[in-house]
Amino acid sequence: MGTLYVVGLGPGDPSYLTGAAKTALSRAEVLCGYTLYVELIRPLFPDKEIYTTAMTGEIERCRHALDLAQSGRDTAMVCSGDAGVYGMAAPVVELLPDYPGAAVEIVPGVTAALSGAALLGAPLGHDFCVISLSDRLTDWSVIERRLECAAAGDFAICLYNPASNHRRDYLRCACEILLREKSPDTVCGMVRSIGRAGESVRVLTLSEMRDADADMFTTVFVGSSQTRRIGKHIVTPRGYRS
Amino acid sequence: MGTLYVVGLGPGDPSYLTGAAKTALSRAEVLCGYTLYVELIRPLFPDKEIYTTAMTGEIERCRHALDLAQSGRDTAMVCSGDAGVYGMAAPVVELLPDYPGAAVEIVPGVTAALSGAALLGAPLGHDFCVISLSDRLTDWSVIERRLECAAAGDFAICLYNPASNHRRDYLRCACEILLREKSPDTVCGMVRSIGRAGESVRVLTLSEMRDADADMFTTVFVGSSQTRRIGKHIVTPRGYRS
Repeated sequence: MGTLYVVGLGPGDPSYLTGAAKTALSRAEVLCGYTLYVELIRPLFPDKEIYTTAMTGEIERCRHALDLAQSGRDTAMVCSGDAGVYGMAAPVVELLPDYPGAAVEIVPGVTAALSGAALLGAPLGHDFCVISLSDRLTDWSVIERRLECAAAGDFAICLYNPASNHRRDYLRCACEILLREKSPDTVCGMVRSIGRAGESVRVLTLSEMRDADADMFTTVFVGSSQTRRIGKHIVTPRGYRS
Repeated sequence: MGTLYVVGLGPGDPSYLTGAAKTALSRAEVLCGYTLYVELIRPLFPDKEIYTTAMTGEIERCRHALDLAQSGRDTAMVCSGDAGVYGMAAPVVELLPDYPGAAVEIVPGVTAALSGAALLGAPLGHDFCVISLSDRLTDWSVIERRLECAAAGDFAICLYNPASNHRRDYLRCACEILLREKSPDTVCGMVRSIGRAGESVRVLTLSEMRDADADMFTTVFVGSSQTRRIGKHIVTPRGYRS
């Protein structure tokens, strides 16, 4: 019986890999994944067989990886960030009943909410929400409702997918929804290309962010009412009491 | 000028350390932190100077670590899980203006939401909230409001600190609040001692969890309306469309 390892790579640079992720990648005979993510770790394993597909070939890629595991070959499905957060662990586990000879092991990784937060200071130091603005697989009405509830609960918020190749205005729409409830001076941060060439960090207010440019490599942080700017950092304190 | 590295260790076993975390710990002359967390990595660095305090000595510990960095000694403050999520990055950055000679670098790690989710399958495969049930530093009314908003937004939810030495009923209270909005059949999971001896995993419904026992080593997952049980796993699908 082969094992399919679903492996979170962290934000990009191999220094963010955990020891467990490295071990799983070493054990695998085949590395599967979206082309860009496989390229991130290919230099560490130049001789491995690889199977890559475009971003939209996700189910085909999962089925191929499960086929390999069922045939007895240890295989790794690589994911940017964490294996579970908007990652391939969900579709792999959903398909698992079709592949009785395959075992699955999920290896967590540092998702962009954590790696991006570390560059900004501690924007997620207290309760927080993670919301994807992509409406590729989710109705926008669901996304809007979640933004409203995140604001009503005064959570710190991390937004994934603030723009795509097809749509540039997700972030503006999200900021407008949040501004119905939250102060325009709410402390926010944007990080781009975490752990990769061209990494950048910006601290700004929610009203400034409404007009800011984001792309598919940007991760966005929106503070709670307690979030403060301290020098070049932003911090959400762990408690409300002094 | 010394650097204070605030380092997320992951859930416990050193195999969850990232390469960047290992590098930071290697560079540090002194390891600071809560006794239990320093002990997790001390076997890797048996000859380092250490400075530990009890859980409640957090500000004193931060000031000592910043003093060391200001005096020119590279120092590591270790945190269980991530450095930022309920971790020491927030208080360290808040104190930083008092220590002009100290530099800070925050090294993210695999927080229990991610490592626990990996053991269950993919409970956080779509938008999610992380909420601590500890009222040590936060009024319970704030926690209750966040639980209500997380339920209203149909987020998957990860709960930290479902019990303490002083209070055993946080989880029951939280489940009762969530049950006002969510189905009693909502798929939930509990994981205990992630990455440590005695690791355990349990899948159950929200109504069953109301009566379940949790302790300070337990991390709790509450599904969205879309979360499903698949064999021994639980999954929150990445999209609402088929």
